[in-house]
Amino acid sequence: MDAGQREYTVTFFPADKKIKVAPGTGLLEAAIKAGLHVNASCGGAGVCGKCRIIVEEGTVRGGGSEKITQEEYESGHRQACISQVCEDVTVRIPEESSRRKGGLGTEIPVRNRARKHVFDRGELKKEGVWLPPVEKICIQLPRPDKQDNLADAGRLLHELSTRHKRSCEIDSLAVLQKISKALRQEDFSVTATLEVPVSEDGKHRLLDVQPGHWCHRNFGLAFDIGTTTIYGVLIDLESGEFLAEDSCYNPQMSYGEDVISRIIYAEKPEGLAMMSNLVVKSMNRLINEMLKKAASLTGLSNTPIAREEIHSIAIAGNTTMTHLLLRLEPNNIRRSPYIPVSTFFPAFPVGDIGLDLSKNCVALAYPSISSYVGGDIVAGIMGSGMYRSELLTLFIDVGTNAEIVIGNRDWLACAACSAGPAFEGGGITHGIRAVEGAISDFSINPDTLEPMNVTEGGKAPIGICGSGLLIIVATLFEHGVLNQSGEFNPIEHPRIREGRSGWEYVLAWRDECAVEHDIVINEVDIENFMRAKGAIFAGIMTVLEQVGLQISDLEQIILAGGFGSYIDIDSAMTVGLLPEVDPEMILYVGNGSLTGAWMCELSNAIRRDVIDVVRKMTSFELSEIPEFKDQYMASIFLPHTDFTLFPAVAKRREIIERE
Amino acid sequence: MDAGQREYTVTFFPADKKIKVAPGTGLLEAAIKAGLHVNASCGGAGVCGKCRIIVEEGTVRGGGSEKITQEEYESGHRQACISQVCEDVTVRIPEESSRRKGGLGTEIPVRNRARKHVFDRGELKKEGVWLPPVEKICIQLPRPDKQDNLADAGRLLHELSTRHKRSCEIDSLAVLQKISKALRQEDFSVTATLEVPVSEDGKHRLLDVQPGHWCHRNFGLAFDIGTTTIYGVLIDLESGEFLAEDSCYNPQMSYGEDVISRIIYAEKPEGLAMMSNLVVKSMNRLINEMLKKAASLTGLSNTPIAREEIHSIAIAGNTTMTHLLLRLEPNNIRRSPYIPVSTFFPAFPVGDIGLDLSKNCVALAYPSISSYVGGDIVAGIMGSGMYRSELLTLFIDVGTNAEIVIGNRDWLACAACSAGPAFEGGGITHGIRAVEGAISDFSINPDTLEPMNVTEGGKAPIGICGSGLLIIVATLFEHGVLNQSGEFNPIEHPRIREGRSGWEYVLAWRDECAVEHDIVINEVDIENFMRAKGAIFAGIMTVLEQVGLQISDLEQIILAGGFGSYIDIDSAMTVGLLPEVDPEMILYVGNGSLTGAWMCELSNAIRRDVIDVVRKMTSFELSEIPEFKDQYMASIFLPHTDFTLFPAVAKRREIIERE
Repeated sequence: MDAGQREYTVTFFPADKKIKVAPGTGLLEAAIKAGLHVNASCGGAGVCGKCRIIVEEGTVRGGGSEKITQEEYESGHRQACISQVCEDVTVRIPEESSRRKGGLGTEIPVRNRARKHVFDRGELKKEGVWLPPVEKICIQLPRPDKQDNLADAGRLLHELSTRHKRSCEIDSLAVLQKISKALRQEDFSVTATLEVPVSEDGKHRLLDVQPGHWCHRNFGLAFDIGTTTIYGVLIDLESGEFLAEDSCYNPQMSYGEDVISRIIYAEKPEGLAMMSNLVVKSMNRLINEMLKKAASLTGLSNTPIAREEIHSIAIAGNTTMTHLLLRLEPNNIRRSPYIPVSTFFPAFPVGDIGLDLSKNCVALAYPSISSYVGGDIVAGIMGSGMYRSELLTLFIDVGTNAEIVIGNRDWLACAACSAGPAFEGGGITHGIRAVEGAISDFSINPDTLEPMNVTEGGKAPIGICGSGLLIIVATLFEHGVLNQSGEFNPIEHPRIREGRSGWEYVLAWRDECAVEHDIVINEVDIENFMRAKGAIFAGIMTVLEQVGLQISDLEQIILAGGFGSYIDIDSAMTVGLLPEVDPEMILYVGNGSLTGAWMCELSNAIRRDVIDVVRKMTSFELSEIPEFKDQYMASIFLPHTDFTLFPAVAKRREIIERE
Repeated sequence: MDAGQREYTVTFFPADKKIKVAPGTGLLEAAIKAGLHVNASCGGAGVCGKCRIIVEEGTVRGGGSEKITQEEYESGHRQACISQVCEDVTVRIPEESSRRKGGLGTEIPVRNRARKHVFDRGELKKEGVWLPPVEKICIQLPRPDKQDNLADAGRLLHELSTRHKRSCEIDSLAVLQKISKALRQEDFSVTATLEVPVSEDGKHRLLDVQPGHWCHRNFGLAFDIGTTTIYGVLIDLESGEFLAEDSCYNPQMSYGEDVISRIIYAEKPEGLAMMSNLVVKSMNRLINEMLKKAASLTGLSNTPIAREEIHSIAIAGNTTMTHLLLRLEPNNIRRSPYIPVSTFFPAFPVGDIGLDLSKNCVALAYPSISSYVGGDIVAGIMGSGMYRSELLTLFIDVGTNAEIVIGNRDWLACAACSAGPAFEGGGITHGIRAVEGAISDFSINPDTLEPMNVTEGGKAPIGICGSGLLIIVATLFEHGVLNQSGEFNPIEHPRIREGRSGWEYVLAWRDECAVEHDIVINEVDIENFMRAKGAIFAGIMTVLEQVGLQISDLEQIILAGGFGSYIDIDSAMTVGLLPEVDPEMILYVGNGSLTGAWMCELSNAIRRDVIDVVRKMTSFELSEIPEFKDQYMASIFLPHTDFTLFPAVAKRREIIERE
C-alpha cells in the first residue's frame, strides 16, 4: 500500500485483531487479511448469507440484504461480503459465521505478500551515475569573422570539445543539413543535443542543434512491451521526474494470447509487419496520451512537450515481443533448438519501426539472453538491482513461461521453464484471468471444511485466477483434503464429490455464482497446477545444482511480474512453488522490466552494465540437462518428494495428521 | 598519346624535322607540334589559302580546294589546314608559306606539355594497402543444434571473429531483418559484406548477408562531381579493374556556370533540393550506363551486376558541389568570411540523397579544407601521390578559381585564388570554351608577324579558348608585340590596330572565320588575362613566403584539372603563370579528383590518410594576408616586375630586343 494514502482500522472480535485497510475495502477481504475465516461461499454476491457479522462501533457502507431483517440491521448485523470499510470500525464475527466452537473466529494463516522493493531514482544521483543517454548543452559560439572562419560544424564541435570537454562526432547528414540555420537564428546561441557514449572512451554523437537555449528540456521514454500489457513512462531526464505513465493491452492479444501463436501469425505474409505495427500504433497512442497528461503539469513553463524534444527511448520486452516489434523473423524461436535472430539489438532511429518522434531519436531495445530469457528479464535484473547485489539471489518471473535467474553481482545463471498457462488460468477447468468475480483468495473452516471465497471486486464468483488457485491448492493440502500426490483424501463431505475429471471440491454452488454451474477444483486441475509449479521448482533446483549451490545458499528471492505482486508466499512455499526460506528474504519488485527500461533513460552507466550483465550470464537449456527430468519428477508433488526441503510444511502436516 | 595506338611519322622539309602523330591529325597541328610555323590565318577553314605545302612522299587525306589547281594538286600541293595524316608522309613547307627568307620554315618553340603521371593501381598492392572499404567474406556456418543454440546474428559474428579475425558489429535493423532467411536459404552458407573500419582498431560493420558464396563480386563506384562535368567509374574491388567509365555535363550548368550563381539559385525555395536532385539524377543515369557497359564484359560469369551489389561509393567535389549534393546550405560560402556548413562529411547511406543503390551502400564524400579549397583538391592531393611524396611540391588546379597546395608528405599549405574566368574564356572579348573552332594553338612568323591559328577540330575559328589565350599572349610578348605591361608596342602592321578596347591584334579576318567579325585579342583581354595569372602567381608566392620558402626550393609542380592537360608549360612560364623551373619538374595528373576518389575505393588506408592530410593542411586566406596584395601588384606584368624570377624569359627578351 502506498505511503500517504488514507487508511482505516478494522478491529475484529472476538479474536481482537486489528488491520489497516484502504477506504472501500470489503470486510471479507479485511478479515482474510487479518487471518480470520468467515464462511463466504458466494464470494461477495450476498447470496449465501453465511458471512453475517455485527458492526459494533463505527459504520460500514452497504451490507444489508433480504437475508437481514430490519431489526437485525439496526442492531448492526451485516453481510461481510457486501460491506465496505469507510471509517474506523469494530466488527464481531459471530460463532455461526466462523462455525468454530468457542466463538473466537477461526484463525487462518495471514496472507504473506512479498515486501515491495521500489528502486529509488535518487540512488542513481547518490552513486554519481545519473547521466541520461542524451544530454543538452547550451552554447554561445564565437561569431565567425575573417580571422576565424571555421566551418559551422567544425565551430560547434570545437567549442564542445574545448569548452565543454565533449569529444563529439556528427554521423548523419540530417544534423549537418540544419546546422547552418540553427546557428544563425539566435546569433550563434544554440543548444546541442548529444547522445552520450556507452563506453567511457567513446565519442558523443551530435543528434540535434536548436537555436537558443533549451537545456532544461530533455525528455525520454521507457516502455515495457509485455505479451499482455504495454506500459510506458515519460521522463524528464533533467529532474528524473516521471511526467506521465500510461498502459494499454497489447493489441496482438487478438491474434493469440501467448508468444507461440503470435509467432505463427507473424509467419503469414505481412504478418510480421502487422504484428509490429499493432504495437507501434499502441506506443504512438500511449506517447500521445502521456504528452497530453504532461502538458497539464505546470512545471514546464506551460510549453507542452513536442514529440521532437524526445531524443531517447528505452524498450524492454521478451525475445518474441522484441523480435515482433523490430520486425525480426521470430520463426525459429518456436522450434527446437529455439534460435532467435539476435539477442542484442543495435540502437536504431525510431523512424525505422515507425515511432512518431524526432527523427534523431534513438531507440534502445534491451538485449535478450536466449529465445526464452528475454530483454524483460535482463531489464528486471537491472531494475531489481540484483546485478549489483552482493546477496546470492534467486530472481523469478512467473507467467506462461517462468524465467529464473540465480546469481549476484559477480556471476549470473538463468533458465526458462515452460510452466504452461496454469498460473494465468489456462488448463484449469474453471480457470480465468484476474478479472472481476475471479476467486483470488480462499480459506476453509478446518472443522467444517466450508469455504471462504474472496473474489476480485467482491463480485459473485465466475472462476479461479492464478493467485486464487495457488491458495486453494495450498489450503486444501494444508487441511488434509489433498494428499501429497494432489489426490483427494477419502473424506465424506457435501462439497467433495466425484466429477468428470476425478474427485473435486465445490468452491461455490451454482446459485451463488454468476455462471451457470458450480465452481469446482478437480484432480486434473491440481495435476496441471503441480506440473507448472513443479517445472519452476525443478528449474530452480537444476540451475542451483549446475552452479554447485543449494537452496540454503540463497540469500534473497526477488519476484517480478504481475503474478509476483499477488502471490501469497506462504502458499507458494506450502505447495513447493517457491523454496522454503525466511519470508523476509523475499522481495517483490513490481514491473522490473519497466524499471530497468527507465533506469536506462536516467543512467548511461546502466547501459554499460547491461552489456556486462549479458556477457556475464550463463544460460541453461533445461531440456538439455538430464538432471532436470529427475528434479521435475520429484517436484510434481505437494510440496515435493523430499520433505526435508520443506521442513515447516512437513511440521504443519504432521500436526494436522496427528489431529 | 596512349601507348599501343597506331602512329604515323610526318617528316617536314626543309627543316628535316620528324614528328609522330595519330591517324587523322591535321598537318597544321603536326607542324606546330614539330615546332614549325606555317601561315594559317583561317585555322583550318581552307579559306585563306596561305598554308600551302607540298606532299613529297606518301599521301594525305583532303587538302585540295579551289585555291589549288588540278596541276598543282597532282604535283603534291595541298592546304595544310585541311589535310589529315593517314600514313607516313614527307611534307615540304615552301618559302611563301613560312614567309621566312632561307626557306627552312620558321621554327617556333615546340609545345611543351607536362608529362602525364598516371597513378598505377598496382602500386597499392605493392605497398600492401590494397584493402577496399568493403570486403566480402564467404562463410560456412555450423548449423545450430541443441548444444549450440547461439542466435543467428551471434553465430555469424562469432564465426567472423574466430575464423576470419574480423571483429564486427551490426548497427542497423535492416541487416538483422534479413539475416534469418539468408542463413537458411543455402544451409548456413553465406556471404557477409563488411565495411572495413577506417581506423585500425575500429570494428568492421556488417552491411549485408547474402545466401551462398559471392565473394568474387564486390563492386564500388567513384565519382568526381565537377562544376562543369560529372565523371564516374565502376570498379571491381576484387581485381581493381575499371569495369566502366562515363561522364556527362553537370546539369546544374543550366542554372549558372560558376559556383556562385548556383549558390544563389540554391537559396531560392526548394532550390537546394533541386540542385541536389539534378546531380543525383545524373549520377543515377551514369550508374545505369556503366552497369550496362559492364554487363557487356565477359569476365563476370555473364551475370550482370545488380545495383544491390554495390556497397561503396566515393565522391569528390569542390566545397560548393559537395554542399549542393548533400543538401547542405551553401549560402555562407559566397559571403565573407566564407563559411561552409562543414568541411568534413559523415559517411552516409546513399538513400539519404536519393542514389539508387543498395540501401546498405555507404557513400563517402571527400572532406574539404575551406569554402574554396574543396574535396576535389584533397582528392587531387591523394590521387597525385603528393601527400606521400618526399619532394617539395606545388600542386595547382586552374579553373575559375585556382587552388594551390604546397608541401610534401610532412606538411601541406593551401590557398584559393580568385583567378576569374579568363582561363575558361570568360571576360575575354572573343573568349570561348574549348569547343570546335576555338583557337587553341598559335604562332607568328617573327618576320612578318603573320599568325598561324590552330583550332579545335580544325574548324574555321570562332573564338579563343584558355589554352590558346595563354599561347597567344606568350607569343605576342616573346616577339615584342606586347611590352611587359601587356600593352602593344608601336608597330605598324595591318593586323595591329586600335579598336574599341584599346589596341588589338587581328588573329583572323572575318572572311576566314565561322563568325561574323574579325577575331582579335585586345589590351583589355590581356589585362584580364594578366589579373588572372597574376592572382595565381601571387598566391603561389604568398604561400611560399608564409612557409618561409622560395621558388627555387620547389622540387616538383603538379598540374591538375582539364586546363592542366592543355597548358603549354613554356608559355605558362613566359607569361609568369607558372614559376620558371625545369619543365621536367612539371607533371600533369589528369583528373586527380577522380583518381583520388577511386583510390578510396581500392584502399581503406587512403581513407585514413585523407583524415591525416586534412589535419596536416594549413589553409591561408589570401585576402587576409597583406603581402598578397604586394605580390599581386608585382605579378600583373609579363612575366613579373622581378625579372630575376624568370631569367630564361629575360634572356630571350634581351635577344629579341637586341635583334
